[in-house]
Amino acid sequence: MPYVNIKVTDEGVTREQKQKLIEGTTKLLVDVLNKEPKTTFVVIDEVKTDNWGIGYEMVTEIRKTQNE
Amino acid sequence: MPYVNIKVTDEGVTREQKQKLIEGTTKLLVDVLNKEPKTTFVVIDEVKTDNWGIGYEMVTEIRKTQNE
Amino acid sequence: MPYVNIKVTDEGVTREQKQKLIEGTTKLLVDVLNKEPKTTFVVIDEVKTDNWGIGYEMVTEIRKTQNE
Amino acid sequence: MPYVNIKVTDEGVTREQKQKLIEGTTKLLVDVLNKEPKTTFVVIDEVKTDNWGIGYEMVTEIRKTQNE
Amino acid sequence: MPYVNIKVTDEGVTREQKQKLIEGTTKLLVDVLNKEPKTTFVVIDEVKTDNWGIGYEMVTEIRKTQNE
Amino acid sequence: MPYVNIKVTDEGVTREQKQKLIEGTTKLLVDVLNKEPKTTFVVIDEVKTDNWGIGYEMVTEIRKTQNE
Repeated sequence: MPYVNIKVTDEGVTREQKQKLIEGTTKLLVDVLNKEPKTTFVVIDEVKTDNWGIGYEMVTEIRKTQNE
Repeated sequence: MPYVNIKVTDEGVTREQKQKLIEGTTKLLVDVLNKEPKTTFVVIDEVKTDNWGIGYEMVTEIRKTQNE
Repeated sequence: MPYVNIKVTDEGVTREQKQKLIEGTTKLLVDVLNKEPKTTFVVIDEVKTDNWGIGYEMVTEIRKTQNE
Repeated sequence: MPYVNIKVTDEGVTREQKQKLIEGTTKLLVDVLNKEPKTTFVVIDEVKTDNWGIGYEMVTEIRKTQNE
Repeated sequence: MPYVNIKVTDEGVTREQKQKLIEGTTKLLVDVLNKEPKTTFVVIDEVKTDNWGIGYEMVTEIRKTQNE
Repeated sequence: MPYVNIKVTDEGVTREQKQKLIEGTTKLLVDVLNKEPKTTFVVIDEVKTDNWGIGYEMVTEIRKTQNE
């Protein structure tokens, strides 16, 4: 009965990548804890880079510096 | 002082349905735990079907199979 | 496929009350959104009154004032 | 290693206000708990007023009454 | 900068299993989304079986039926 | 009507520190967004160091290395 919530920044996650996250997470819970996949939920939240901060800074600003 | 978070797939939940979820959840907490409605929060998250997985599969794919 | 998280203060919620919260929330999602109960999760978090604040104050302190 | 999630209604929070929330929260965790800012995350969720209820009512409706 | 929250029932998850969940989830985010492991958080919540409901029922009750 | 959830590792946060987190967070939301403190919730979760991972590792293990 696990519930997994994955929060990542909203920077172009593709449908194929989401599918891989769902499959990989579910497989992990089956392999490690012997959970039932039919009642394993994976919910992905894509958070705008303006709404995520780390080290006092918006990710939007961090990305600018990284790309300079 | 309860806080309730309801996550459902984003498949056309109407304003009237949201109102019913808010009322019903608040009433439940008042009835069962005698909580104060003025400080009872209900937050509804609508999650895209691509972002919700169950049983290794995206809900988007599950819906296709169900409608076949 | 809903997921509901109910956060309340840890002030002696009984097993019977938890059962009523689980049943009532699930019924609400079935009635309002026609959801499948078999994949409706309800998770209750009991939070210590020292760890919940409202209006600048710990609930622990608010309870003292209310009982005076 | 703190993770802070701030949920507010989606009513025109500006980029500058988000920056202040990120900075202020991070500073608080550094000052009070001596946490490392580089691994302090702040995630802001903006919730539509139709999706937030308090005292049995949608915030959308509460705002109408407040502005009358 | 991902944040992953894994909620499972509190039924004897071992330290080794937790380590595997942390490693596996982090690896998945590195492999699929090329995320930086140093800022990838995994938080595991163990929820008492009385506090988790599915299909109108407490997991505690579901386990009894399964073991009969 | 904000709701703030602060997750930190469970490493001896004192009552006084919790009070400061509640006050500081509430003040920030009042100052930056002009929110009403009476309906501002702050919930602190203390997570066991075995249950928090970063950079593939349990915080428990990271602390050992830091203290060597």
